[in-house]
Amino acid sequence: MLLEAIYHRPKQNWSYAYDRSTLHLRIRTKKADMDAVQAIVGDKYAWDDTKQTVPMRIFATDAMFDYWEAAVEPPFRRLRYAFQLEKGKKKLWLTESGFVTAPPADCLTFFDYPFINPVDVFQPPAWVKEAVFYQIFPERFANGDSSLDPEHVEPWGGKPTPKNFFGGDLQGVIDHLDYLAELGVNAIYFTPVFEATTNHKYDTQDYLKIDPHFGTNELMKQLVEVCRKRGIRVLLDAVFNHAGATFPPFLDVQEKGADSKYAGWFHVREWPLRVEDGIPTYDTFAFEPIMPKLNTEHPEVKEYLLKVARYWVEEIGIDGWRLDVANEVDHHFWREFRKTVKDVNPDAYILGEIWHDSMMWLEGDQFDAVMNYPFTNAVLDYAAYGKLDGRGFANAIGTQLANYPQQATEVAFNLLDSHDTPRLLTICGGEERRMKLAALFQMTYPGTPCIYYGDEVGMSGAGDPDCRQCMVWDEEQQNGDLLKFYRALIALRKQHASLRSMDIVFLHAAEKDAAIVYERRSGDEVFIIAMNAGSRPRNLDVPAANGEWQDMIGGGGKTQVKGRQLSIALGSLGFAVYKYVG
Amino acid sequence: MLLEAIYHRPKQNWSYAYDRSTLHLRIRTKKADMDAVQAIVGDKYAWDDTKQTVPMRIFATDAMFDYWEAAVEPPFRRLRYAFQLEKGKKKLWLTESGFVTAPPADCLTFFDYPFINPVDVFQPPAWVKEAVFYQIFPERFANGDSSLDPEHVEPWGGKPTPKNFFGGDLQGVIDHLDYLAELGVNAIYFTPVFEATTNHKYDTQDYLKIDPHFGTNELMKQLVEVCRKRGIRVLLDAVFNHAGATFPPFLDVQEKGADSKYAGWFHVREWPLRVEDGIPTYDTFAFEPIMPKLNTEHPEVKEYLLKVARYWVEEIGIDGWRLDVANEVDHHFWREFRKTVKDVNPDAYILGEIWHDSMMWLEGDQFDAVMNYPFTNAVLDYAAYGKLDGRGFANAIGTQLANYPQQATEVAFNLLDSHDTPRLLTICGGEERRMKLAALFQMTYPGTPCIYYGDEVGMSGAGDPDCRQCMVWDEEQQNGDLLKFYRALIALRKQHASLRSMDIVFLHAAEKDAAIVYERRSGDEVFIIAMNAGSRPRNLDVPAANGEWQDMIGGGGKTQVKGRQLSIALGSLGFAVYKYVG
Repeated sequence: MLLEAIYHRPKQNWSYAYDRSTLHLRIRTKKADMDAVQAIVGDKYAWDDTKQTVPMRIFATDAMFDYWEAAVEPPFRRLRYAFQLEKGKKKLWLTESGFVTAPPADCLTFFDYPFINPVDVFQPPAWVKEAVFYQIFPERFANGDSSLDPEHVEPWGGKPTPKNFFGGDLQGVIDHLDYLAELGVNAIYFTPVFEATTNHKYDTQDYLKIDPHFGTNELMKQLVEVCRKRGIRVLLDAVFNHAGATFPPFLDVQEKGADSKYAGWFHVREWPLRVEDGIPTYDTFAFEPIMPKLNTEHPEVKEYLLKVARYWVEEIGIDGWRLDVANEVDHHFWREFRKTVKDVNPDAYILGEIWHDSMMWLEGDQFDAVMNYPFTNAVLDYAAYGKLDGRGFANAIGTQLANYPQQATEVAFNLLDSHDTPRLLTICGGEERRMKLAALFQMTYPGTPCIYYGDEVGMSGAGDPDCRQCMVWDEEQQNGDLLKFYRALIALRKQHASLRSMDIVFLHAAEKDAAIVYERRSGDEVFIIAMNAGSRPRNLDVPAANGEWQDMIGGGGKTQVKGRQLSIALGSLGFAVYKYVG
Repeated sequence: MLLEAIYHRPKQNWSYAYDRSTLHLRIRTKKADMDAVQAIVGDKYAWDDTKQTVPMRIFATDAMFDYWEAAVEPPFRRLRYAFQLEKGKKKLWLTESGFVTAPPADCLTFFDYPFINPVDVFQPPAWVKEAVFYQIFPERFANGDSSLDPEHVEPWGGKPTPKNFFGGDLQGVIDHLDYLAELGVNAIYFTPVFEATTNHKYDTQDYLKIDPHFGTNELMKQLVEVCRKRGIRVLLDAVFNHAGATFPPFLDVQEKGADSKYAGWFHVREWPLRVEDGIPTYDTFAFEPIMPKLNTEHPEVKEYLLKVARYWVEEIGIDGWRLDVANEVDHHFWREFRKTVKDVNPDAYILGEIWHDSMMWLEGDQFDAVMNYPFTNAVLDYAAYGKLDGRGFANAIGTQLANYPQQATEVAFNLLDSHDTPRLLTICGGEERRMKLAALFQMTYPGTPCIYYGDEVGMSGAGDPDCRQCMVWDEEQQNGDLLKFYRALIALRKQHASLRSMDIVFLHAAEKDAAIVYERRSGDEVFIIAMNAGSRPRNLDVPAANGEWQDMIGGGGKTQVKGRQLSIALGSLGFAVYKYVG
């Protein structure tokens, strides 16, 4: 037993309330080191009457570790626990006081989950688990009302630059809801729509007003309402880390300096405001002078931003917020933000933009989810770049499953690209087959997948601003095969609970082998999904129940399994999706 | 390099703001595995201009691991970082994406400390680092006003039972402030003083009223004021997890059942309230029917308890709260509690009763400290029980130093016994010399030490109720030698910053060896402290600066060090305290 590899610390992703009656206990051990791990659990005040030994299972595994988990229902909402580790004839116990070689007599030295208080239980909205998101960059999706066009608007389909405009607006979105409904998505994430000077609107001027080039607050309300009728949720982008240079309080500070009544709204390091050697004398997003960082500790700033947070949920009816540069804003603010938003709509989805480890925001008091870029990286490294072999990919997924409480994984925002990255097809070197593998994994993995507008019709584009091209509406120019594929994938995900469930097992994931096979399961429903990110065709045999297996997406018909082995033939960059028929 | 042993995860005790401009970075490696560890740090938006390599030092070590630390001042309050591990000619880098064998070209895959927001910085009150606490169980400390005595009061000094009374009160404390001042303590922690039925008062009847057998609110205010004049702080005990059976809202619920307007104030599992087979049908502390758990999520309960929290700080002037059964109350409540208390007095000390891992309460948003029972256990296992040898003890201390952010250690409440445990002398089997070793370590360790009333005069006692005997005031019956020792120790601690500093290094701590020697340092001030928890005398040579070393407590005069070796002779259960004179 490699003791140095063993890790457990109460709370976070290691012991947490999954719901009001269930605790999840987890422990990490060296990969393939233990034969069995059990949790010894009971009530601290009635130990002898309640103690029991609960087997743990390996729920995730990565390059170095196995992660064991058990679900336990404490009889009185509180739990003492320790771990019993077994390898051959050797047994060892891990308590909070360390390792002991004899079974502990009482629970005094055990780990403690003191009490499940409902308000502390992390409960993200259930609808997110069933959602398929579509990200819209409003200036580039569709121009539905040319009367709103900015000056110097350029013809639809032109080359995007950091500063030009093409006239996309909210009416354009409303006009294309049939398209979105047919695609099958049931949630839209809009990048910012509030009044601002840029085409991306990340430099907010007025947080309470739809940008006049996009429409009006009333029109946004209509949009939300027609979306709701079609079962489509709407998420807006809250840029609360920083304002824009034309935000009136910042204008006032620019004008009046330290005498401005808004002086405390920003983080001014040195008066007067200026930029020296490219570095503003006030804190900003990065070193961007037109994005002054807001002082979210200031009571008036807090009051203002919380009013904004509340207004769009309560008055306009949006279903949640995506939070820009969320990790640079203080935790206290986000706790009040969550309370404010959930008071109005307990089902609102709070999604933080964090590209890094996000544990400290995913404990139930701040966000429901983050933009899951670690997922993005793993899928792209495997399917697009070929940097990860099958084993490496399965390991990366294992690390992620282990990193957060289960409910965080269930609503993780699993994107493959965005307005901040090159487009998926471009990342895949223009190779549609790689793109399909990436999308297939995304659509058959727990969490909520998000499609960046236009990916589904074959749009390409390098990093910002090239990834922000105008949506291609001319069907002649759309990639119809890809669109059909996306529609089929989305439909499949929505129809089959197993593709959204937490239950994922890699049946094949080997070193120096680009093919993977994984099983997805929910109740009696079982899928086996195979993909080959390599250019050589592969034939794989994986364990499968005897009976009929239906090819769900390749059109290959039914396969009969007799010897508990499903044989899968994968072409170069090919895939297969089988469902057990019985 | 044993990669499985290496651990770092952003935030908590691994990367945190020590103050508004300084981050502490820490990483764990296998004990004695690395030759060097460095942190590669810089600003994410100006990487090339700001990147630097910062050496890390081993700040703590335990049985299995070394813990490395570096303090960094980010130029713009945000920091990307990775770790460079070195062993012989081998180099390896740990990034957030895992281990890499080549120096990372950019900081994209690095760990991220997004931004130091002042409100998120954990800043416990500075006075606590300088405090020496004295814990008073008011019913047993001194009877200063016999007119307040409960019925059937028993003669002072009788045998305590779970239910009897001896008449201790607040006037008794006021009458003995000279004694406390002479002892040298500068803070008092009172177990509960609010109206309740029991002698321990953990079953609160009225949170806004001093128990009539102890005095009045006015008298408590006087006590706080006279204490303040003497430089003595006062901490009260907030029993917010549960109320008492005579708490009017609970009486109302008992009477009216589910129709009571206070029905929501408690956690009733089944109406009517009753006890079946020893288990109440409502949640309680443990299974104690007279301690009904309060529903701290209920808005009225919250409002009431926060009013209480505010009242005693604002109106009576207390310096903080000790929170009973703190870990069974929800985190949301404690966050509001902190805000309420610190709004009135930012210097108030918030001390939670948690016997277990307390990381989730020590991140700056809830408590300043917890009752440090892991410290208690380590010291007692070494000095009292002989369960730990010198190395084992140093390891236990190392684990603790590594477990929390530095500021938590600086104000940790380091007790050796309390009203909830047997008395220190009894734990030491009546062996005063062992007790002295424990107290010596306690008084020369970072954090805030606490003496349980009467320990200093040699009181003994087994677990509750025996540890709650009446204070011995008859000097004939007091252990004068022990009292003198405590006075000397406290004075020494108060006079010398090095004894309160974070800088502790074990110069000698070996397996199967009960002697330890450690160095305490602050600026130019250096102490070397040695103790021998074994019965055989020991002679030890430890590295020390040439010059004169003064024996500070044993009366052994000055020792001259010439060859950079201090020779220390320790008797059976003996100790020595040297200060460098120069």
